[in-house]
Amino acid sequence: MSILVVGSVAFDSLETPSGKRERVLGGAATHFSLAASFFTDVRVVGVVGEDFSEANEKVMLDKGIDTRGIERAEGKSFHWTGSYLKDLNAADTLATDLNVFAEFAPKIPTEYNDSEFLFLANIDPVLQLDVRKKMAGVKMVAGDTMNYWIGAHREKLLPVLKELDVLLINDGEARLLTGESNTLRAAEKVLELGPKTVIIKFGEYGSAAFFSERSFGDGIKRAPFRVHTLLLDEVVDPTGAGDSFAGGFYGYIASQGKLTPEVFKTAMFYGSVMGSFAVEKFGTERLENTTKADIEARFQQLRDLSHLS
Amino acid sequence: MSILVVGSVAFDSLETPSGKRERVLGGAATHFSLAASFFTDVRVVGVVGEDFSEANEKVMLDKGIDTRGIERAEGKSFHWTGSYLKDLNAADTLATDLNVFAEFAPKIPTEYNDSEFLFLANIDPVLQLDVRKKMAGVKMVAGDTMNYWIGAHREKLLPVLKELDVLLINDGEARLLTGESNTLRAAEKVLELGPKTVIIKFGEYGSAAFFSERSFGDGIKRAPFRVHTLLLDEVVDPTGAGDSFAGGFYGYIASQGKLTPEVFKTAMFYGSVMGSFAVEKFGTERLENTTKADIEARFQQLRDLSHLS
Repeated sequence: MSILVVGSVAFDSLETPSGKRERVLGGAATHFSLAASFFTDVRVVGVVGEDFSEANEKVMLDKGIDTRGIERAEGKSFHWTGSYLKDLNAADTLATDLNVFAEFAPKIPTEYNDSEFLFLANIDPVLQLDVRKKMAGVKMVAGDTMNYWIGAHREKLLPVLKELDVLLINDGEARLLTGESNTLRAAEKVLELGPKTVIIKFGEYGSAAFFSERSFGDGIKRAPFRVHTLLLDEVVDPTGAGDSFAGGFYGYIASQGKLTPEVFKTAMFYGSVMGSFAVEKFGTERLENTTKADIEARFQQLRDLSHLS
Repeated sequence: MSILVVGSVAFDSLETPSGKRERVLGGAATHFSLAASFFTDVRVVGVVGEDFSEANEKVMLDKGIDTRGIERAEGKSFHWTGSYLKDLNAADTLATDLNVFAEFAPKIPTEYNDSEFLFLANIDPVLQLDVRKKMAGVKMVAGDTMNYWIGAHREKLLPVLKELDVLLINDGEARLLTGESNTLRAAEKVLELGPKTVIIKFGEYGSAAFFSERSFGDGIKRAPFRVHTLLLDEVVDPTGAGDSFAGGFYGYIASQGKLTPEVFKTAMFYGSVMGSFAVEKFGTERLENTTKADIEARFQQLRDLSHLS
């Protein structure tokens, strides 16, 4: 089944302990789509500037991603400059040039209207809510956000949370959103804000899903589920790890077409697998060169890493 | 089969977000023994002062722990004062009163000589090496250490590492020991220092085992294995979590009497389970009141938390 993702398509300039790169392809919607494209059809809604080349678009087209919803505006694409020299787990933002993204008003091509799954990547919650309303008929809605919206625009974010089947955030965001440092208690408070299920991500330490009675529509509240990351001998560029996790996770769910506890858990494993590829090269390079066989091999590795016989 | 553990038997004065306690029973050998006692026979070598009461000893005796190797010296027992108010994952040491522990010279009762498993808890590496030599006939040796010995007494620690089947350390200690911040590379460097296997602990984020060709005596180097922690809605007192992990881990291995990859992995699950009990109350209180049924229930929880069907 098809996923519609709305979010940023951007260029990133990065420095990490492994090196420095200028203007590599990035953006939440880009990483998400590439990761999800291994599992299901993906349609992107976003905006780019005149600097977005055919070669850039080809990266997505090569994976069968539908780019008709990427609007081309006058000006430059969103450009983020960040450093991981101090801490591979936390980006230091050096510059955020929103450019055409500042005036982004998502337009959904009519061909996208039959999408069954909606992913609201990290953008202004007002836009997330707008897209969610335009896509009222979807089977499932998942979404991401960030510290900025939680801290400075909480009142705009809260209505979005009520629309979500699954919210994906990191542990710092969960603390900020709830004022709770204990993960289990923070998760319970997030669920009270509306999402049926919340996935809290711990960077290199994996992620955990917390369910409510509403998670699977059967009134049963299930115990949390945790997934490790794969251990890599070099994390080249952590940018997009979370979006790639989301893409693998949601792509797998869409490929199954239904949300059962087992589908959800398996999807988290695929999320972790896709996150592990994303960080192995700068930008989208490693996702571009991943194969289904690579993914299955790493899924098996992750299972072996964590499962008793 | 029997485990001989050498290490501290102490009193701890603690403050955590959950409250404050004066002089509760603590010490690495104490937490280790209590956790291991659910799986196998445990014999303790340590030293206490005149303030160590019959009631204190009874905590161990009630669990069938052999305390004949706990020497009673003139003076006071080791007393550690620490705070977790700033960070539940990292103790702030307020005072370390070594007292009788300053002159500790481990004496091993002849009745302990047939112990098959040796655990060297965190003490002066010179003493660890001494005990290891006195117990030359054991089947297996595991051990712990801490930043202080790694940083200030590395030359004393290195010969101990060469004696270990399994070294248990936390991620900060692994970084300090190897100068590597990447976990996988740090683990490889630790293995080069001698231990056949290293378990790196990430506090609330679980732990990972890294194997060498020497781990199971068959020349095969196996992939790493990771275990989560159980999520608790209140961590009352993290003191002894690592020692309780070690006790559960090593106790289970001793109970099986042989070291296979599957026994090792299952042992890590039991380690995580025992660590989860340890932190639920101050001092040893929760371990004292744990039952085999509690342990099995939590083992199943941990399996469900991490396993696909």
